[in-house]
Amino acid sequence: MTITPGGDTVTWGADGLTVPADASALLPDALAGAPGGPEAVAALLAAAADALSAAREERGGPLPARTPQEVAEAVRTALGPPTAAPEGDRNAPDLAERVLTRLTHALAVHAADPAHPHCAAHLHCPPLAVAVAADAVASVLNQSMDSWDQAPAATAMETRVIGELAGLAGYDPEAAGGVVTSGGTESNLTALLLARDHALAGPERDPVRHGVARAAAGARPRILCGAAAHFSVQRSAALLGLGEDAVETVDVDSRHRMRPRALREALDRMRADGDIPVAIVATAGTTDLGGIDSLGAIAHIAREYGVWLHVDAAYGGGLLFSRRLRGLLAGLDRAHSVGLDLHKLGWQPVAAGVLLTRERALFAPLSRSVDYLNPADDEEAGYPSLLGYSLRTTRRADVFKIAVTLRALGTDGLGRLVDACRDLALRTAAKVTAHPRLQLADSPSLTTVVFRYDAGADSDEVNARLRRRLLQEGRAVVGRTRINGRVWLKLTLLNPATTVEDTTALLAGVAAAGDTELAALKESR
Amino acid sequence: MTITPGGDTVTWGADGLTVPADASALLPDALAGAPGGPEAVAALLAAAADALSAAREERGGPLPARTPQEVAEAVRTALGPPTAAPEGDRNAPDLAERVLTRLTHALAVHAADPAHPHCAAHLHCPPLAVAVAADAVASVLNQSMDSWDQAPAATAMETRVIGELAGLAGYDPEAAGGVVTSGGTESNLTALLLARDHALAGPERDPVRHGVARAAAGARPRILCGAAAHFSVQRSAALLGLGEDAVETVDVDSRHRMRPRALREALDRMRADGDIPVAIVATAGTTDLGGIDSLGAIAHIAREYGVWLHVDAAYGGGLLFSRRLRGLLAGLDRAHSVGLDLHKLGWQPVAAGVLLTRERALFAPLSRSVDYLNPADDEEAGYPSLLGYSLRTTRRADVFKIAVTLRALGTDGLGRLVDACRDLALRTAAKVTAHPRLQLADSPSLTTVVFRYDAGADSDEVNARLRRRLLQEGRAVVGRTRINGRVWLKLTLLNPATTVEDTTALLAGVAAAGDTELAALKESR
Repeated sequence: MTITPGGDTVTWGADGLTVPADASALLPDALAGAPGGPEAVAALLAAAADALSAAREERGGPLPARTPQEVAEAVRTALGPPTAAPEGDRNAPDLAERVLTRLTHALAVHAADPAHPHCAAHLHCPPLAVAVAADAVASVLNQSMDSWDQAPAATAMETRVIGELAGLAGYDPEAAGGVVTSGGTESNLTALLLARDHALAGPERDPVRHGVARAAAGARPRILCGAAAHFSVQRSAALLGLGEDAVETVDVDSRHRMRPRALREALDRMRADGDIPVAIVATAGTTDLGGIDSLGAIAHIAREYGVWLHVDAAYGGGLLFSRRLRGLLAGLDRAHSVGLDLHKLGWQPVAAGVLLTRERALFAPLSRSVDYLNPADDEEAGYPSLLGYSLRTTRRADVFKIAVTLRALGTDGLGRLVDACRDLALRTAAKVTAHPRLQLADSPSLTTVVFRYDAGADSDEVNARLRRRLLQEGRAVVGRTRINGRVWLKLTLLNPATTVEDTTALLAGVAAAGDTELAALKESR
Repeated sequence: MTITPGGDTVTWGADGLTVPADASALLPDALAGAPGGPEAVAALLAAAADALSAAREERGGPLPARTPQEVAEAVRTALGPPTAAPEGDRNAPDLAERVLTRLTHALAVHAADPAHPHCAAHLHCPPLAVAVAADAVASVLNQSMDSWDQAPAATAMETRVIGELAGLAGYDPEAAGGVVTSGGTESNLTALLLARDHALAGPERDPVRHGVARAAAGARPRILCGAAAHFSVQRSAALLGLGEDAVETVDVDSRHRMRPRALREALDRMRADGDIPVAIVATAGTTDLGGIDSLGAIAHIAREYGVWLHVDAAYGGGLLFSRRLRGLLAGLDRAHSVGLDLHKLGWQPVAAGVLLTRERALFAPLSRSVDYLNPADDEEAGYPSLLGYSLRTTRRADVFKIAVTLRALGTDGLGRLVDACRDLALRTAAKVTAHPRLQLADSPSLTTVVFRYDAGADSDEVNARLRRRLLQEGRAVVGRTRINGRVWLKLTLLNPATTVEDTTALLAGVAAAGDTELAALKESR
């Protein structure tokens, strides 16, 4: 490589070639943020919208009537072989549009469509149009939250919106800390990291920044949660080097809530064994049955034993928007930290997770000064940095769509959608109860309806099979889970436009598929 | 709560209210995926495009000429106070559009614009219009990668595209594993988690799933990397419970490359001490100087010592697209894992990270069966699951924009953009060398130019101040870093449309700001 000082000619590489001086020739309408770029994006999206609508009609139902192998084959065909050259003439003005619409069609025609009333398996919401458009704006500007000079307004906006959400959770917005995350799993992991370092970095122990292995020698760090807590608690424990079996699951009552007495007994046992309780994870809305732990009673115990209380409200946090239902989260304001997912009961496209802490200082273990991102003299000069709130470095401005949604709908507007989904769940549960061949696991705590086709001793097999039949026929996306070792089906109702007529038809489809599978099973014997 | 079996009336909550049966009244054009939804998104984005273009003109430069406090105040004003009700009449057809355009303006007018030629501080690229439009399509469909029935085509597409990228990295596409991540930090964390569990879960030790504290008793797990490796290596070590000081940094040569001999000596020392080398992290493209470790030599040592080799190619991985430059990554195919960021030299909106492993089985420590996501009988029936590849659960289909970009530009098209940026870096470095008051730290290895205003003993202070002056005047976003304890400035050139005339003007602005700050400093004495 030779650089000729002051000159414009550069020779480099073994072949000594140079690239065209005017690289913009490579970039027809190319950059989203350059002049003409936003308009190019809007035009591309208008074309993609047509492809999306055509694909929805072609699909007809909530998912494609194809096997996974058939879907994979169709995707392979649409993608074509890997290629070094772009398809066709790279200067053709419609090249980008052609590729985009073809692949949009392939993705959409083989999508599981959360906006379809019969796609109701998971905590997988149909996002609001305004939130999706806002998300696209975030992509155009491509701000990154790891330094102020990559996201001046977005930094201020995240700080502001985090304060608002903290206020909604009952925290003092001026004192609270928080960050936008990729979802409940990252929120749980981050909270447990903070709790671990809070618990193990006391004056009498090695700071955990220097390793769990030495810090915890002789005393075992433990995490407590209800038996129906999300699996990411165990996964986080493993990631954090505590081990999955550092998690002790506490007995739950018939409403799937941690028993406070059992929690207290577990803490006493740990104290007697010399173990270190790192955190209690309460759940506000278990994934399957929507159970909400008794947050007030648990907060009381956490304070008494001096243990960090984290509330996983990834699902139930949406109740904060509902004037009618937010009382179910009483006691939340006494937790050290709480995770909410606005891509569940908040109708955001993924990702829109939020982790809040009662005090900003609780994020201290993550604080870090990096020469190229937040040098001390820049911070002293007033340049704020959010680097110390996130496990990530580069980080998309997911806060923007949340901000737009909060202003376009207001918290009450979101609350009405929450109420509608819960109302639908209750009405649908009543339909299950009234159905001669369906069985309700329990009355809904949130917006899930857990039930099954009653096939006696064959129930497990019949329900697993009927679910796959509905998938393969493209007729319904119904969830499944296991409760007390048995297979149950689940409707997770997150579409506020779905009506009880829709769910009644869905239940009829489940029952018919159950009849078919039960008959087939009997015949095969 | 009362459920009346078979009935449509539901009474619940203390107030006994019911919500309107027709929730769709709450949802004017609301759901992005419902009929009319994609068109509503496109219309909203068309309005937002106007706001984006107007804001860019109003801003005029690469960032707002405002202090952080002024930006925060403007954002507060644009947001207005938190509100329960939406702004104005919630049935007004243009409510969403009004809110979106107002907040888009506020975000954009106060953005740091990576599409502006004088915004050149960070690995913060201006994304391609086609990638942004594809990202919006992913938002509309809102597929989630944690189960097949939330993402049928997207699951197949990620599997396919991961195979293609693995092939580009020199791995066997059929054998390789991989996953789309939120970026280099998550890729490094995931790779080090896999390496940790690979190293510590051998037959003679406790499986790490059961905790680092016990697994590592008596033998200290260690990670090795070059002195200029990314700070996320240390951060990952802390997160994983190994402690930041589990990371041993190895001496680098004058080209910022780990010295193979020093690496070997460190490994010998660890062996003698009874420590466990968990991983070697080589860097292909350090954040500041773009240094690329000697991957072939390091891979040889890693194999000899039986240690996991992870390559952090978050920055340099883009060289794989360039026919001319990919040779700089020779030896990459012999690493156990490699991380690439297509939101750097790949022109994707954040996030578009990728972690690849040479063999799919290397992901085993993350595998997990979850009743509600991937029960065994569904997997046996042919329903694939990507859950065991990611630290996240809910996960956006970020692969879609990557797939569209690969087909619209071809790898050669991306390679030309890489070449253009590198050419620009070399030409710009020549301009620095020719400038009487600027000093070049080193000739560019990739697309960064590290330099400073030469103010003798005052250089540190003058360069830090001149950078903030340029920020505050809205004239340029120039990076800074610290090398051998001294402050240097940095241009990270990721905009292929930027010309050497642009960077020459930028350098002139830096020199002028340096003159001003130096004079002010002298006057203050």
